[in-house]
Amino acid sequence: MNGAEAMSSSEEPYNCVLVRYGEITLKGGAVRRRLEERLKETIIYKLRSKGVSFSEVKLTPGRIIIRTEEPVKVAEISAKVFGVVSTSPAIEVTNSIDKIRRTAVTLAKLVIGEGESFAVRARRVKIYPISSKDIERIVGADILNELRGLNVRVDLTKPDKVIYVEVRARRALIYDKVVPGVGGLPAGSSGRVVALISGGIDSPVATWLMMRRGCEPILLHLDLGGFINPKVREKVGNVVRALKDWYPLPSMTYVEVPYEPLLKALIERGPVKYTCVLCRRGMLKVARLVAEKFNAKGIVTGESLGQVASQTLENIHAISRGIGIPVFRPLIAMDKEEIVALARRIGTYDITSTPALRCRASPVSRGLYVTTRADPSKIDEIWEKLRLEDVVVDCFRRLRVVEVRG
Amino acid sequence: MNGAEAMSSSEEPYNCVLVRYGEITLKGGAVRRRLEERLKETIIYKLRSKGVSFSEVKLTPGRIIIRTEEPVKVAEISAKVFGVVSTSPAIEVTNSIDKIRRTAVTLAKLVIGEGESFAVRARRVKIYPISSKDIERIVGADILNELRGLNVRVDLTKPDKVIYVEVRARRALIYDKVVPGVGGLPAGSSGRVVALISGGIDSPVATWLMMRRGCEPILLHLDLGGFINPKVREKVGNVVRALKDWYPLPSMTYVEVPYEPLLKALIERGPVKYTCVLCRRGMLKVARLVAEKFNAKGIVTGESLGQVASQTLENIHAISRGIGIPVFRPLIAMDKEEIVALARRIGTYDITSTPALRCRASPVSRGLYVTTRADPSKIDEIWEKLRLEDVVVDCFRRLRVVEVRG
Repeated sequence: MNGAEAMSSSEEPYNCVLVRYGEITLKGGAVRRRLEERLKETIIYKLRSKGVSFSEVKLTPGRIIIRTEEPVKVAEISAKVFGVVSTSPAIEVTNSIDKIRRTAVTLAKLVIGEGESFAVRARRVKIYPISSKDIERIVGADILNELRGLNVRVDLTKPDKVIYVEVRARRALIYDKVVPGVGGLPAGSSGRVVALISGGIDSPVATWLMMRRGCEPILLHLDLGGFINPKVREKVGNVVRALKDWYPLPSMTYVEVPYEPLLKALIERGPVKYTCVLCRRGMLKVARLVAEKFNAKGIVTGESLGQVASQTLENIHAISRGIGIPVFRPLIAMDKEEIVALARRIGTYDITSTPALRCRASPVSRGLYVTTRADPSKIDEIWEKLRLEDVVVDCFRRLRVVEVRG
Repeated sequence: MNGAEAMSSSEEPYNCVLVRYGEITLKGGAVRRRLEERLKETIIYKLRSKGVSFSEVKLTPGRIIIRTEEPVKVAEISAKVFGVVSTSPAIEVTNSIDKIRRTAVTLAKLVIGEGESFAVRARRVKIYPISSKDIERIVGADILNELRGLNVRVDLTKPDKVIYVEVRARRALIYDKVVPGVGGLPAGSSGRVVALISGGIDSPVATWLMMRRGCEPILLHLDLGGFINPKVREKVGNVVRALKDWYPLPSMTYVEVPYEPLLKALIERGPVKYTCVLCRRGMLKVARLVAEKFNAKGIVTGESLGQVASQTLENIHAISRGIGIPVFRPLIAMDKEEIVALARRIGTYDITSTPALRCRASPVSRGLYVTTRADPSKIDEIWEKLRLEDVVVDCFRRLRVVEVRG
């Protein structure tokens, strides 16, 4: 890949990009067509928003072909569109064997270096008169012959370079590299969820994972106001922009709800050791109201079992009891190290890894302990007694909705 | 590693194994001590159950040291104990610099081959009088000198081999390889969950992920009786044994509940297109009853968003509404390809990848469709009308409990 990147645009031998998608092809009829159309649409949006030029994005059986004058760049960008398994900048030609041979040799000359080993890997549609094995032999011999002076050799098991030939009904695609794609399902194809965003490392990763699996996220941030360092607002803003960059549709919804009133009620009247559990339950309750407003079918949190005191099995139970819609916790069984690795890949790590800004309402800020074994019935009881449902509804009513574009 | 594996046991220069654990060290006082003790206990159980000999498993600050005559084997086995981040077969000696130098050279002679590059990486406790950098220089020079004839050289950025020196208060550990560990938290340290096991690829992976994060699983299989190929029982049995092998405690609970009565009720009286949603809800209801019986705090399923028709956001909502305890879905945002990769690593893929055995109650078996958008209220209504709660309780009452040992 570095070799190709080093080439100037005019030197690029490619004239198109081959885009592969995986799981979508396992779906039946109407579902598959809908997902393919959504994938095409999001690729187009992504390329436009990155300002790269292309002339066509074409659905073919099991593949998308993009015609462009910037194939290396387009292959990199489209590999990051949800649903894409891999991409290849490629040369598309008519499928006569002569044309295939000449093109493969041209590409081989550009990518195979002195002393390197190579292999030719071919596949073809059944109606093509020459077998895959024969195409490999013929093209391989051509390359050996034409690159004689460079001391190249064939190595079928662990070649330095591969020349791929994919023969279709009328055309053939010749390429040399496969850019791994992000996987998942096309953006927004699975429906809408409300995703809690805190400014920490975990929540953007959880949100991104659900987005990658086709969810449209309604990003929800509970603004702790005077209980938290105001820098958290900047973090959250940057997280929202980073996530929008992964979401190749015109607009993504961000919702902010002031949450100071609930924390005040807890500090003034609540039992100290349950503060965090009651606060987290309140957040899910707000999320539930936001979900109803936007017709979302679930809530996403960054909870990871045992990572912190509020994330024991008992506390998760006490927090989420009676929420009434599914709570998705894609990080529940991940180690911190794995979450950090994902955050780096997504691009949210640098934003969120600055020192954690501790909430001033937390018992820990006051030198006290947090329970690790909240009893759900006890939490229900306090919830009732402090009339926290009313506070939650008051907070929710003051929501601010922002459509994030770009 | 292959080099070391090829050595016969008597040639092994090592006399112990260094075990590293990660997240546990981030916990405070009592929690940390409890987790460290559990880790030690599970390592001992695992080594005994694999029949390898060892004389001591010792907790030291931030590390466990295992004394054994089979260090390479012990390092491999203990790397697979939940909570372990990595292991190294090592040579433990007193920490005099002369002893360290001699030992490092002995190890270097065994592992560094002709023409290879190497580096020495040292760390030490603060009280040790020689700095890490100086240890590296001194030991590096010794190795260069002693291996003169082999044309070896120092490469600090990308060495072929590394000699590690870890100096502690009284002893030093010298080693050359790091075996990656499975990670997570010690077995059973996070509490109990009920894990649904179907015989398919996904459910054992979901269960294993929660086990790795410290959950004690109560494995629950709903026996579909005449509605499924009897081979599924064999699959489930093999899955249970494979999971037990990862669970280094004396016993793991397996529960089987006959589920034919619920399927019969659905076939005879239920609306066809909701069969699968109602069946899945029934399974969660049984799991809830099992959770109560065993005092488990959550349910684990292998659901993955959008993978099959019953796993849309709408259907997951309709299925899990009113279950009353958290449902953990660690695979919710994973692609099939990622799940399969995990199944291979865990060792359940070969057991579960044989052709799926379709349930005869499924509408698809009868040439009909399954809904992808069940309305939760509609499902509640049918649930009531068909008195399925009673059927669930009847099924549950006929549960069979097996303690899996070994």
